[in-house]
Amino acid sequence: MDDLPSPSCPPSLSNGPPTVKREAMTDAPASSEASRPEARSPRGFNDRRARDLVAERKILAAVSEVYERYGFEALDTGAFEYADALGKFLPDADRPNEGVFALQDDADSDGNGQWMALRYDLTAPLARFAAQNWETLPKPFRRYAFGPVWRNEKPGPGRFREFVQCDADTVGSARPEADAEIIAMAVAGLEAAGLPAGSAVVKINNRKLLNGLMTTAGVSSEGQKLAVLRAVDKLDRLGADGVRLLLGEGRKDESGDFTKGAGLTAAAAERVLAFTQAGAGGRTETLDKLAGVIGGSAEGDEGLAELAAIHQALTGLGVGADRATFDPSIVRGLEYYTGAVFEAELLLQTTDDKGHPVRFGSIGGGGRYDDLVARFTGERTPATGFSFGVTRLAAALKAAGRDLAADVRGPVVVLVLDQARMADYMAVAGELRAGGIAAEVYLGTSGMRPQMKYADRRLSPAAVIIGGDEFAAGTVTIKDLDLGRALASGVADNAAWRAERPGQMTVPRTGLVAAVRAIVEAQP
Amino acid sequence: MDDLPSPSCPPSLSNGPPTVKREAMTDAPASSEASRPEARSPRGFNDRRARDLVAERKILAAVSEVYERYGFEALDTGAFEYADALGKFLPDADRPNEGVFALQDDADSDGNGQWMALRYDLTAPLARFAAQNWETLPKPFRRYAFGPVWRNEKPGPGRFREFVQCDADTVGSARPEADAEIIAMAVAGLEAAGLPAGSAVVKINNRKLLNGLMTTAGVSSEGQKLAVLRAVDKLDRLGADGVRLLLGEGRKDESGDFTKGAGLTAAAAERVLAFTQAGAGGRTETLDKLAGVIGGSAEGDEGLAELAAIHQALTGLGVGADRATFDPSIVRGLEYYTGAVFEAELLLQTTDDKGHPVRFGSIGGGGRYDDLVARFTGERTPATGFSFGVTRLAAALKAAGRDLAADVRGPVVVLVLDQARMADYMAVAGELRAGGIAAEVYLGTSGMRPQMKYADRRLSPAAVIIGGDEFAAGTVTIKDLDLGRALASGVADNAAWRAERPGQMTVPRTGLVAAVRAIVEAQP
Repeated sequence: MDDLPSPSCPPSLSNGPPTVKREAMTDAPASSEASRPEARSPRGFNDRRARDLVAERKILAAVSEVYERYGFEALDTGAFEYADALGKFLPDADRPNEGVFALQDDADSDGNGQWMALRYDLTAPLARFAAQNWETLPKPFRRYAFGPVWRNEKPGPGRFREFVQCDADTVGSARPEADAEIIAMAVAGLEAAGLPAGSAVVKINNRKLLNGLMTTAGVSSEGQKLAVLRAVDKLDRLGADGVRLLLGEGRKDESGDFTKGAGLTAAAAERVLAFTQAGAGGRTETLDKLAGVIGGSAEGDEGLAELAAIHQALTGLGVGADRATFDPSIVRGLEYYTGAVFEAELLLQTTDDKGHPVRFGSIGGGGRYDDLVARFTGERTPATGFSFGVTRLAAALKAAGRDLAADVRGPVVVLVLDQARMADYMAVAGELRAGGIAAEVYLGTSGMRPQMKYADRRLSPAAVIIGGDEFAAGTVTIKDLDLGRALASGVADNAAWRAERPGQMTVPRTGLVAAVRAIVEAQP
Repeated sequence: MDDLPSPSCPPSLSNGPPTVKREAMTDAPASSEASRPEARSPRGFNDRRARDLVAERKILAAVSEVYERYGFEALDTGAFEYADALGKFLPDADRPNEGVFALQDDADSDGNGQWMALRYDLTAPLARFAAQNWETLPKPFRRYAFGPVWRNEKPGPGRFREFVQCDADTVGSARPEADAEIIAMAVAGLEAAGLPAGSAVVKINNRKLLNGLMTTAGVSSEGQKLAVLRAVDKLDRLGADGVRLLLGEGRKDESGDFTKGAGLTAAAAERVLAFTQAGAGGRTETLDKLAGVIGGSAEGDEGLAELAAIHQALTGLGVGADRATFDPSIVRGLEYYTGAVFEAELLLQTTDDKGHPVRFGSIGGGGRYDDLVARFTGERTPATGFSFGVTRLAAALKAAGRDLAADVRGPVVVLVLDQARMADYMAVAGELRAGGIAAEVYLGTSGMRPQMKYADRRLSPAAVIIGGDEFAAGTVTIKDLDLGRALASGVADNAAWRAERPGQMTVPRTGLVAAVRAIVEAQP
């Protein structure tokens, strides 16, 4: 048969708007335009195709393996929780408009329709699960979980109302070593997912240090404390000068809006700022500096002792300051943290769509929260955990030069040239699959060229062509589409490649699988 | 150190009610009993732990690999669809009480809060996705998907309101070979998941045959046709006599409730029954028999021709009648099917909780539906697919003697005997993990015996014990918990095992990983 033009040449054919004619779709049912619903997904929800899913699955598989090696068991709770179980931990106090997807259940046998809501994170369901099963769980209880969470927020670009999180938590251990283990595991998980060692660091702080600081800074009320924490949390964004204003009387932003400050004296504000800047250097160095600033507050000393134990355990686990460091400026927004807090940050300088350098920032975080289970049981239950967003980690990996979906390709396509030989084409595809090669028979109704275009759009490595000549001779013709794409994109040099890799070959039927495998396994 | 009693002896210790004392949980927050929410998951939603999840993940990984080898690409749509997009395909007409979890979205910029609902299956979202992206999709479009679906039904034992489905569909091909491919892929997927070849069969029918039958049986209205289909669908449950009544005047059940019949004449009813019983024997044999019963109706002939093409393609794919057969009694409840329909059935005789033999029945099904995408576009778009419930398949595998979670074990537990040496214990666990062995340091506050009990409850293969003697001598003591369990359960003979496998050994620190690996890799 003739040597077909590669569907990748010229490139405009595959890069331009789709030109494949819609399949014949006759017998349209009698539904008028007006009565037809619009085909669109709800706003803030997105459809994810193979490339996104491949990256997500690779991340989750790698991280799951690490977490299980640390002794954490898998748990999956349902999408819904009763609203009272989610309770006050739902909306972030800083963003009161955040909400949940809630609905009232049908009435049960008691006649009460209870309110339930889709989970907002994976921590609240864990607290409910731990409280519900506390008596029968091995303690401490270590679990990891991943799955979608839902937030009824205003969607925007890159801001979805459904996204996948991955969490690991230890419930029932107050030991700082439990925090250290979570931190070491987070580091190991991020690296197993593909982040090059040294491209991310976990920054660690302790709320007790912050509380000790409050005492030494003369903070008198919970409200004032919260204002101080919020101010410190903005160090990244506003810098020392902005935070100094927020620690004192207040700050007027560019738009003229005034944010009331925490009302600290100038000396106290300086003390807070000195505290937040004690993080440079090694872990023991930072601990020494902090001891000077906190100056003997009982809670501060407790926090320091915990950080010292975390340092020891991390050292035992082989996690140095290049991967986990103490940074007193880390606050974490959620109010439920009671001890250690940590945040994993991507260190790589990345660029935005316009090529401007940007800080990628946080790719996950967590900390110790000792009060969540107590909401149900009345008994304080120590817990600590780490959480990251899977999509965000995939983006971080891409920024770090690791595209997990780079090897995604379509199946080998067996073209259909003779309708009467469908069973033979099916057998050919079956033979390739049995050889471990993804393959399919073209099942549309188009002719040869559209079939080749289809194969190209599927990113097929090769097309198998069997017409009358091949059937008669007991051969198959194989078109190397990878080569076509490599040539079209300029990756491969035409003359050099052609010499050692033919664009098309005809081999005996018995040589089919070996010939296709040679193409599939070669990296063009 | 002393030889500790195995925590598995006597077995009552691990099998009895939990005796581990609750961890000290002091400093209870001041929340009164009355204000505390009850810790429970919403009815109809269940928490799944490691064993369930391991089985589910193995199934999905194996099936995904098969589906991708058939050229199907992964797709994940969001949990919600707008209610109008789900449309009339939601509630099964036979079970009108079935519903969805729906809520009204917040008002968008147009001021309209639209109704949206959690997806009820994976087919309706695919139809919406295909319609939305039709112009840019390679056609035919093959995708597979898995994930939770939600049904707002009355929950009951084994009947959940959230469960995981796995679907594969081809949109845009009217060819019977597309049906055959789906069927062959379903067979391959079920076998890859672990079902022994021959333990399940896919039964195939065609709605067009049923329609042809209606013509020859003199069925005049859609209502009568539906009544006939529903009667045939009950053949399994009611037998030929019950179905004969439902095809004729009607049937009174055991409770005295009367179901009105389809109103066929006795001769027509016999013809329908003969049709449903034409399935015995090979595929070509069944086609021959059916040709006799259908007798020249145009739509019936079309259905026969499609089945003949499916037979040819299945033969080309190496799928014989032992794995895919024609069975005219298969109807499938959903009204949206327009051509081939198929159902995968477990053939194994299984027993219920009381040891009574039971038919396991259907483990998945599907068929051709050519009208779903047309709801959005107005243009008929041929489509065909197969769907199975993942939890149900896991149950079928268990019934077939394949417990996918049989090898689930806990981590090696490093006991803590000296609080001052935590960093050393962490290093030991780190060393084991680096050797690929799941391990953890005990992070509770209990003494030696409770730590051993903890390790036993976690199903740890071994415990690592390092006390003062070991630290001084540079050794580690390893307790073989797998052996303890094997002895306790009677699997292993005490004397024989003791001879070649010590219950406890002390080895040099440098021999730790090798010694633990020997225990972990041995099958007790």
